[in-house]
Amino acid sequence: MKWWVKSWIGCIVWSCGECSSWLSKLEQYCSKKIPTVNGTYQDGTPTHGGFSSAMLVHQNFVVRIPEKVAPEQAAPLLCAGVTAYSPLKQFLNGSNKVLRGGILGLGGVGHLGVIIAKAMGHHATVISSSTKKKAEALEHLGADSFLVSSNAEEMEAAADSLDYILDTVPAFHPLRPYLSLLRADGELMIVGAVPQPLQFDAVELIRGKKNLYGSFIGSMEETQEILDFWAEKGLTTMIEIVKMDYVNKAFERMERNDVRFIFVLDLAGSNLLEC
Amino acid sequence: MKWWVKSWIGCIVWSCGECSSWLSKLEQYCSKKIPTVNGTYQDGTPTHGGFSSAMLVHQNFVVRIPEKVAPEQAAPLLCAGVTAYSPLKQFLNGSNKVLRGGILGLGGVGHLGVIIAKAMGHHATVISSSTKKKAEALEHLGADSFLVSSNAEEMEAAADSLDYILDTVPAFHPLRPYLSLLRADGELMIVGAVPQPLQFDAVELIRGKKNLYGSFIGSMEETQEILDFWAEKGLTTMIEIVKMDYVNKAFERMERNDVRFIFVLDLAGSNLLEC
Repeated sequence: MKWWVKSWIGCIVWSCGECSSWLSKLEQYCSKKIPTVNGTYQDGTPTHGGFSSAMLVHQNFVVRIPEKVAPEQAAPLLCAGVTAYSPLKQFLNGSNKVLRGGILGLGGVGHLGVIIAKAMGHHATVISSSTKKKAEALEHLGADSFLVSSNAEEMEAAADSLDYILDTVPAFHPLRPYLSLLRADGELMIVGAVPQPLQFDAVELIRGKKNLYGSFIGSMEETQEILDFWAEKGLTTMIEIVKMDYVNKAFERMERNDVRFIFVLDLAGSNLLEC
Repeated sequence: MKWWVKSWIGCIVWSCGECSSWLSKLEQYCSKKIPTVNGTYQDGTPTHGGFSSAMLVHQNFVVRIPEKVAPEQAAPLLCAGVTAYSPLKQFLNGSNKVLRGGILGLGGVGHLGVIIAKAMGHHATVISSSTKKKAEALEHLGADSFLVSSNAEEMEAAADSLDYILDTVPAFHPLRPYLSLLRADGELMIVGAVPQPLQFDAVELIRGKKNLYGSFIGSMEETQEILDFWAEKGLTTMIEIVKMDYVNKAFERMERNDVRFIFVLDLAGSNLLEC
């Protein structure tokens, strides 16, 4: 009875199965979907995600973890990983040239964005406000270049050079400097849920043929794809595994941005009675 | 010597011919392009568009006016027409389902947007702040439906229903009500050069997979296409032809939005010495 060990649940446990989003294999946009965590089943029972001892899930929302991918490696792929994978894969759509991509924000989603872009064969530039993460981006994550957004000369030299930017920054930031880096028909893929309204200049968008779009996690098909992609390419997620008794400390460290790059909480290995 | 009579100039007289925009047949985004009006040739001479008695133009920027299309019908297609045609054609890109499109703003570009969308076989909805233009949209332009953006009930009922919206409004307007009308992966095509910054909510863009993009006139290939499309489909541009001595009155009427839908200035038929 090993089958269940390698069958995991993604970010959603159910969607209506009949709306236009479902028909387009974009079930994560179904307005009636039930998220795996902080959701509510039809009978009013809340969903608790990874903190559950058992969950009710529709068979369409179960993915297969490849043998080669360890559970702690797979866990971040089901949310952060597919969040980066989905827009990059959709942008790729049949292109066979070497795409030049920018990754804005080097956190949980951003570091996976760099790994995925490189594994897809893109030229990946990490864009950051300071040089603090430069060595990490170039040496550990294998980015091809590093662009400091506060350096006007570097930004000017990189104008109109990128095919896309994966914008993972979840706090307010001006878009103009990043839009200026995109070539005509380039795309700014927004995946960071910024609480404040973001602004753009219509004339700049029009004159430069710039595209802006939002992307939310990924479909179940894409969730399976990134797991298989991880196995096929032998990729490694950069994680730090912690037990339940470390969770408050982990939160404190996250707030200080002191994590490279994702904490994975090992519930099975935790003594929950001690917490 | 009839050949020149039917060869017209579009919005541009020259582009560099070597940048990535040129290579992608998007020469209107070339940063070195010379516009047909208010531009400057390399030697410093300004361009005067339709007010010129002669113009220097690179052969790549000349289009052929089909026999069936009268000059006064063709004139608005070279700018307003291709501005609407380019994003609609690019969105269509291989789709063979009946697309549901919204046209926001029923002016020079907007009325051509409705005509083009209908001729492409789309279901066209005109979106307006009042019912003032309802009869015109439905009866004269052949729109399929009319949506009043100030009517909360109508807007709610139309949520998530459109594949695209062609936004031709050149003044500040909130985007949220229109983004809410788009289905997942729907596109808001911005062609109106709004001077103030426009705002959007990142969470709404992400959760709904909404796309926003700017589009500037069209390529020369698309300019030729819309002229041929006009001839092939037997379409009619809604214009009012005026002579030069009426130009100030025409401006006054434009400011009052009192034109259905485009003034065409007949310079050849004007006695310029009298102006």
